Amino acid sequence: MKNTDRGSEHLSKPERRIRNVLYIMSDQLRADHLSCYGHPRLETPNIDWLASRGVLFDRAYVTSGVCGPSRMSSYTGRYMSSHGATWNHVPLSVSELTMGDYLCGSGLKAALVGKTHVKPDLSGLDRLKMENDDSYTRLIKGGFSEVDRYDGHAPPGAESGYGGYLRAHGYAGDDPWNDYVVSGERPDGEVVSGWSMRNAKYPARVAEAHSETAYTTDQAIHYIQQQGDAPWVLHLSYIKPHWPFIAPAPYHDMYGIEDCTPLIRADHERDNPHPVVAAYQQHRESLAFARDEVVETVRPVYMGLIKQLDDHLGRLWEELKRLGRLDDTLIIFTSDHGDYMGDHWLGEKELFFEQSVRVPYIVYDPSGEADATRGTVEKRFTECVDTLPTILDALGIGGYDHRIEGKSVLPLVRNGDAGDWRTFAVSELDYAYRGARHTLARKPDECRGWMIRTERWKYIEWSGLPCQLYDLENDPNEFHDLGSSPEHAGVQDEMKAHLFEWLKSLKSRTTVSYQQVEDKTDNDSKFGVHIGIW
Amino acid sequence: MKNTDRGSEHLSKPERRIRNVLYIMSDQLRADHLSCYGHPRLETPNIDWLASRGVLFDRAYVTSGVCGPSRMSSYTGRYMSSHGATWNHVPLSVSELTMGDYLCGSGLKAALVGKTHVKPDLSGLDRLKMENDDSYTRLIKGGFSEVDRYDGHAPPGAESGYGGYLRAHGYAGDDPWNDYVVSGERPDGEVVSGWSMRNAKYPARVAEAHSETAYTTDQAIHYIQQQGDAPWVLHLSYIKPHWPFIAPAPYHDMYGIEDCTPLIRADHERDNPHPVVAAYQQHRESLAFARDEVVETVRPVYMGLIKQLDDHLGRLWEELKRLGRLDDTLIIFTSDHGDYMGDHWLGEKELFFEQSVRVPYIVYDPSGEADATRGTVEKRFTECVDTLPTILDALGIGGYDHRIEGKSVLPLVRNGDAGDWRTFAVSELDYAYRGARHTLARKPDECRGWMIRTERWKYIEWSGLPCQLYDLENDPNEFHDLGSSPEHAGVQDEMKAHLFEWLKSLKSRTTVSYQQVEDKTDNDSKFGVHIGIW
Repeated sequence: MKNTDRGSEHLSKPERRIRNVLYIMSDQLRADHLSCYGHPRLETPNIDWLASRGVLFDRAYVTSGVCGPSRMSSYTGRYMSSHGATWNHVPLSVSELTMGDYLCGSGLKAALVGKTHVKPDLSGLDRLKMENDDSYTRLIKGGFSEVDRYDGHAPPGAESGYGGYLRAHGYAGDDPWNDYVVSGERPDGEVVSGWSMRNAKYPARVAEAHSETAYTTDQAIHYIQQQGDAPWVLHLSYIKPHWPFIAPAPYHDMYGIEDCTPLIRADHERDNPHPVVAAYQQHRESLAFARDEVVETVRPVYMGLIKQLDDHLGRLWEELKRLGRLDDTLIIFTSDHGDYMGDHWLGEKELFFEQSVRVPYIVYDPSGEADATRGTVEKRFTECVDTLPTILDALGIGGYDHRIEGKSVLPLVRNGDAGDWRTFAVSELDYAYRGARHTLARKPDECRGWMIRTERWKYIEWSGLPCQLYDLENDPNEFHDLGSSPEHAGVQDEMKAHLFEWLKSLKSRTTVSYQQVEDKTDNDSKFGVHIGIW
Repeated sequence: MKNTDRGSEHLSKPERRIRNVLYIMSDQLRADHLSCYGHPRLETPNIDWLASRGVLFDRAYVTSGVCGPSRMSSYTGRYMSSHGATWNHVPLSVSELTMGDYLCGSGLKAALVGKTHVKPDLSGLDRLKMENDDSYTRLIKGGFSEVDRYDGHAPPGAESGYGGYLRAHGYAGDDPWNDYVVSGERPDGEVVSGWSMRNAKYPARVAEAHSETAYTTDQAIHYIQQQGDAPWVLHLSYIKPHWPFIAPAPYHDMYGIEDCTPLIRADHERDNPHPVVAAYQQHRESLAFARDEVVETVRPVYMGLIKQLDDHLGRLWEELKRLGRLDDTLIIFTSDHGDYMGDHWLGEKELFFEQSVRVPYIVYDPSGEADATRGTVEKRFTECVDTLPTILDALGIGGYDHRIEGKSVLPLVRNGDAGDWRTFAVSELDYAYRGARHTLARKPDECRGWMIRTERWKYIEWSGLPCQLYDLENDPNEFHDLGSSPEHAGVQDEMKAHLFEWLKSLKSRTTVSYQQVEDKTDNDSKFGVHIGIW
């Protein structure tokens, strides 16, 4: 990764400083499927280029390995246990401030192109009887100012302009997304559904130029062009490489199984696994990905979708360069979680294996203070709660420490004093909505898991069930669960102590700032109250 | 306490069942200052009468030993770490549902006479741009429908009708509360301020019939009379015996120091105490109550204020009896926290000694199912978070388990199956607003304490500071802190494990009900999403 070309040749202006923020999220992209993170066959030169100009965070974790809670953490800067939106179907409480709330005090908006997975707390809002004005609108959109919200699998027309765009480009019908974007065409001309993974190998019926990734990139470029020299913050949030797994030509058959990295799974992982892992291995998607034909069909297409994403990011970089925006734009590239693709006999995401909770995290800071770290790899732990405080730090917005639990990574990027950086990463899971709950006969509040990942260990605590423990130094593939190993009781206690400290540190006093606390400390007399006077 | 008269003679109607709720809170009333809780000289026959007809909970704890967080727990049914209003100056988040929210779905209101200490989250509300209608009004009042909100020490006229009431009764001036209610008159006629505790021995300048306790009782009786046979829920919330410590005649000199229970303090408690206790011992009120003259002056008046409260409760019971309301009204009597009154060399409240966090808790259920427990003492742990679920249970309102962390005590009162009842009580403290924070040089988020109280032990965990431990079996006065005792390391670990489990069990997924979780569990296909299909 170390790049000897320090890569500031593109930085033309005499003064390089952050005025804009481009916060790019892909969906379901695992870290090890980028060449800068070590994939041997999937070349992602454009993402690599960003890493060569910025800092690649090698140990970046999401607060939960599933879209909703992970994204809500990114948008609020708070852990899942704090924001409470613990799974995809759980609305974000009206009391949670998001990116847009923090920015609006500075006259900025959090513009959105693409996906957020925000579910507004409509029943909470209903109780509040808000006026149906801009505040309400922003609130139900999670604080974002929508250029075009596009969450993928939605009823046609409900959210995005993509449906109309498709029709305008000749994809007729009520649901062109279903009929063209996630449908494929067999060589014999038969139209087949991308929801069935057996069809992943066929090209989608949408032209590449009109596909989701292309459309989303176009929207972002157009937005950035429109801003001219006015400062902006854009969340560019791609739905891909998220399912349905079907790619437009030529990406549908760009890779074969020979290009895939070996499956990270061992036969013994199916013998007496941890009860929650066992239950997840029985989920439909896991049973599917346990079959060779599924892996062999889907993995190459997953890679194709990533390649396509990388190509469009190249197009975006070119445009930023042309507009001079590489001199004044902070760029963060990451993902909301990964995908097992058959590893550990699992499909999809959740749980706490690296394939699910470890994500790419690349930060490009145009300013001179960051020149010393360009092209370097940072091993200290980053979590998705760091994104919002990093953005606010970059824009000089403060006063949020009483709510936000993440930390700005700018001190790391600028080689500055980052203080006592965290020594472990935390991730959480609520499997109440999953079949695993029924398999394990648990109540909806008994389905919680917590991961503590230190330099060497990954420890997982489960509500009412045994723990898991992996020695990442000697078992980087997480094949050997030491959760019931008596000789590791000491390590388990140490990890439990980390979790205990973390639980105690969660921020619940969110309605007053530290300054407000300071102003009122032992100052009751100011308010006409005189206690303890003889 | 066991009362052989089972006390159902007053229950006249053939059908006794709960239709109304009278939830009585006194402020700063410690449990051991009632005769039914063992005070040898302070006779409280009316509160005792309630206990003889109901169940006296002997181990009732508040979630924090200070008004704001304790009351917010009572009104939300949630622990302090969950509702986030961690001290008196901290507004309750707009997302927290209170008693009034739960009742309104059943066409009931939570009527309020007296104090709540609710601080509305005005900045949170400002962000929401609510219409200034009933919802907004209820929200800024913590969900209560105010008959008369009276928080005591408030600017005249800001909250209560008490100011106008006083003026109508001849107490002229801009601030009759200050000039008459909390001012005393010396034998030589000089008017003195009740804010100075040296003046506690003089009678207040208000006639007893116009005092806070009398006025508050009048308001409650009037409200109950007005309801006729319509069902109601009333929170009758007395400000007394809270400071300023000054009582109207004849209560100002009804007791002398000879009537007071001995001070619970030992000289060695000032030698090398726990750092937080040491810091609290240096607060102004603690230094004052460390002086004999303060204790000897204030304690008898504190007792007088309690005696006055008991007399007015007798008046209230009579009225309830006359109206037939003893047949259909659930009555809960409790307090929001206690007062050290010099015990442990402390004044006021907070920390975790019994005098602060243990409160009276008496539940009277008119229904026949409760006859078997009348006059009994219940030793199982009750917490103030139990009040709201008890009220909702009594009224047949359900579906709140995903938010409310307390448990209905009705199964205990009705001698029914209470399931696995809690084996420990929890209390918390946030001392960020107190001088102790400066003394200990801590940041606003480093001032947290947690108490675990089991049958035998009281364990206290502090952020970044050593723990405390008391053996209540052998040291009921909590004189010997075993927090640094190596031989008690095992007990400390056990208590820490309880706290760990409790922290993990806090309810953060509050925007969906358990039923909503059930309805959507592994049901994605219903919403057009088909994952894991080959």
